[in-house]
Amino acid sequence: MTVSDIHATLDSLGITLPKVVPPVASYQPAVRSGNHVYVSGQLPMVEGELPKKGKVGADLDTDAAYDLARTCALNGLAAVASIADLNDVTKIVKVTGFVASAPGYNDQPKVINGASEVMGEIFQEAGKHARAAVGVSELPLDAPVEVELIVELKAEAKNHLV
Amino acid sequence: MTVSDIHATLDSLGITLPKVVPPVASYQPAVRSGNHVYVSGQLPMVEGELPKKGKVGADLDTDAAYDLARTCALNGLAAVASIADLNDVTKIVKVTGFVASAPGYNDQPKVINGASEVMGEIFQEAGKHARAAVGVSELPLDAPVEVELIVELKAEAKNHLV
Amino acid sequence: MTVSDIHATLDSLGITLPKVVPPVASYQPAVRSGNHVYVSGQLPMVEGELPKKGKVGADLDTDAAYDLARTCALNGLAAVASIADLNDVTKIVKVTGFVASAPGYNDQPKVINGASEVMGEIFQEAGKHARAAVGVSELPLDAPVEVELIVELKAEAKNHLV
Repeated sequence: MTVSDIHATLDSLGITLPKVVPPVASYQPAVRSGNHVYVSGQLPMVEGELPKKGKVGADLDTDAAYDLARTCALNGLAAVASIADLNDVTKIVKVTGFVASAPGYNDQPKVINGASEVMGEIFQEAGKHARAAVGVSELPLDAPVEVELIVELKAEAKNHLV
Repeated sequence: MTVSDIHATLDSLGITLPKVVPPVASYQPAVRSGNHVYVSGQLPMVEGELPKKGKVGADLDTDAAYDLARTCALNGLAAVASIADLNDVTKIVKVTGFVASAPGYNDQPKVINGASEVMGEIFQEAGKHARAAVGVSELPLDAPVEVELIVELKAEAKNHLV
Repeated sequence: MTVSDIHATLDSLGITLPKVVPPVASYQPAVRSGNHVYVSGQLPMVEGELPKKGKVGADLDTDAAYDLARTCALNGLAAVASIADLNDVTKIVKVTGFVASAPGYNDQPKVINGASEVMGEIFQEAGKHARAAVGVSELPLDAPVEVELIVELKAEAKNHLV
């Protein structure tokens, strides 16, 4: 289930992991418990800024929100990489996606595919996860999307020094 | 904590597990990590269709939504059964229910009881779970309810071949 | 990572854990699976009553909601304490906070800090957790905040008799 070298895979996909997004409040970007990493809800921050704000279906469309969900997922992987080696990831277990939705907007799954598909590109079989996608009324900082992750590591994976 | 034969219990309750609902996007219906199964957010699909759409408290009432939550839970069990033997379930750990709610509708717990109570009927003591129920503005495909599960298996439980 | 005596710490902080809030429906306040405790979504109940109702940003402000989130977190710890010894807690793994939000209200992280910060006060390093905070349209009983927890115990932690 493991992928030989995730860093080479990221290079070949042209993906540069972002820096870890500092939490906007009193918590950690990611926490390990046993051989799981729980990643905090990630906003689609790019260099400290939200590239778009507002509600999907009103202020931005599904395609734009798909891109933001992909950004959230990569920010989440950066959070994982801050505490463990991505080569020790054995499974993307769960993706939960919250989509700030205009009234009557029901394409949350297409939005969160932006997170799911990049996990598949990077981790292949090990990237196939369980998922929930829901529409919410408001998100922090008026972000259109928020994504959280649960990731499985090899039991013997070492922690990075923090 | 285990129940002797869940398939006999299902029969005695008159419950036929549905076929696994194909994901509406890029993810798996259920994923195992260690001895836990994470079940994706389940919509109340019946043979590929949503029997009801809209917001609870406006387009349908609490009783109708209770039935939909029960359907979500059974779809979730079908997802578990697609990767493991239900006789290897030792605990329903967590139920999370999202209820698409009309403004001022606050009976989400009564709705999600539709999921909780069928777990108790089937798994008895092992069906007693932790739970969260929240109201959201919109759900995928205009579904009124979405339910996700975390289920514990015997450590030695075998995976079904997929 | 463990804290020497949590009960002494609670005393020194002037915190008296509340009684466990009975579930408003068919589930358990907290459930153990392996060495994790999953705590059900907690409302900010005080002696069986919600001290405030409504939407944050309309019916109450961020500071009032912060206090409610703290109450939710303490109710969650009471639920943990009902099934295990708090001295066996090795990590607060995950906090998920749902904030019933008025349209245009985006300070959910400041609200859920009420839960996060009290975890830090009590558990110090072991209280540093992953977190998601989202805004939702409606919560059970018109509560302004709901918080759920995942808590890690020592592997050898004993269960309380229930």
